[in-house]
Amino acid sequence: MITVHHLENSQSIRILWLLEELGADYKIQHYKRVGPQTLAPSEYKKLHPIGKSPTITDGDLVLAETNAIMDYILDQFPDSPLRPQPGTPERTRYLYWLHATQGSFMPLLLDTLIFKRFISKAPFFLRPIMKAVIGRARKAYLDPNMSKMLAYIDAELGRSTWLAGEQLTAADIVMGYCLSVAEVRVGLTDQHPNIRRFLSQMRERPNYKTALVKNGPFNPLSG
Amino acid sequence: MITVHHLENSQSIRILWLLEELGADYKIQHYKRVGPQTLAPSEYKKLHPIGKSPTITDGDLVLAETNAIMDYILDQFPDSPLRPQPGTPERTRYLYWLHATQGSFMPLLLDTLIFKRFISKAPFFLRPIMKAVIGRARKAYLDPNMSKMLAYIDAELGRSTWLAGEQLTAADIVMGYCLSVAEVRVGLTDQHPNIRRFLSQMRERPNYKTALVKNGPFNPLSG
Repeated sequence: MITVHHLENSQSIRILWLLEELGADYKIQHYKRVGPQTLAPSEYKKLHPIGKSPTITDGDLVLAETNAIMDYILDQFPDSPLRPQPGTPERTRYLYWLHATQGSFMPLLLDTLIFKRFISKAPFFLRPIMKAVIGRARKAYLDPNMSKMLAYIDAELGRSTWLAGEQLTAADIVMGYCLSVAEVRVGLTDQHPNIRRFLSQMRERPNYKTALVKNGPFNPLSG
Repeated sequence: MITVHHLENSQSIRILWLLEELGADYKIQHYKRVGPQTLAPSEYKKLHPIGKSPTITDGDLVLAETNAIMDYILDQFPDSPLRPQPGTPERTRYLYWLHATQGSFMPLLLDTLIFKRFISKAPFFLRPIMKAVIGRARKAYLDPNMSKMLAYIDAELGRSTWLAGEQLTAADIVMGYCLSVAEVRVGLTDQHPNIRRFLSQMRERPNYKTALVKNGPFNPLSG
């Protein structure tokens, strides 16, 4: 049986949601964040050489990295519509969003946080300088790429209920977390009506609600 | 037939290498970078809403994002050992490295470049200040995570010839590009003997050599 090593307020909400959708048997081991920087405790970091959340164990196997865990679990449910079959139109959209969410969108969200912290964590008298230097990089790289990504996600969600079509897939589960982060870290506007609809339908979904109860409070870092 | 829309000196080397390993029929359309910032030309950016390299077309389908393209192509070769079958020990290692390379390692490599440029692109008189502020973030976040990642890759390559076992997989193809970038952008040391061996065996592999000839000069950005 799979054990989700669940670090509070982390990306493992996605693994819980997937397992709930599959109706899979699993256990959760909870870990509290520690210290002023709310880091993972040392017993969590010892689980896997990279020490990141989420991590699962299954017998002797220890596996980290969100999408690797998603694929590993989905391998055990080969007929699940959560991973569309090869050769279908849903498959291509699924593959794009599963990979682009972690490979392109998540790094933009991470850099949004890092860029904000370069300003907020600089000594007070340096903040105007940092703001100017970081502002140029935001304008040249981060902001246009983030806008393009959010516009594309919104356009794709204008084509169908979920990212790959009318059925929920694991790509939506991966994306749901990122959009929850984008909502507080970047901000959504009237230009993102389909993203807002996606977030509402996710939050109303019974299996997501169950995952959230097991997850505990979920507060993405805004800056 | 698949057309690889190949932007010079870009990540599409990985798609060419995969197609060569599979012995697949494909066409390449070449695009030259333009302007002082060596960006993709406008006809390249028009291919896909996100406008990034690699992008492929297959009939009416337009697909971007490295790992989505890898999975899309591998779907057409379901028995290829380049994507190990579910239920094998190779599968789990394959999934980890396929996803961790793009989801964890590549963002660290990108931030290494961004952090360097915050210093090199700042006005001359601000560089010492930027160096101090960026240096703190390197020490707190980037450097320890990069060291851990390189150490883990090296340890895994100490267990087997390739990342998932004795056979080359698509995870190695994805990783090969990243390690080529790490070599010039981060630097490899005597602590990474297995990574150095991996890069040599990749560069000696006939299908990689063929891909590199079709690719043209390959010079990852160092800073």
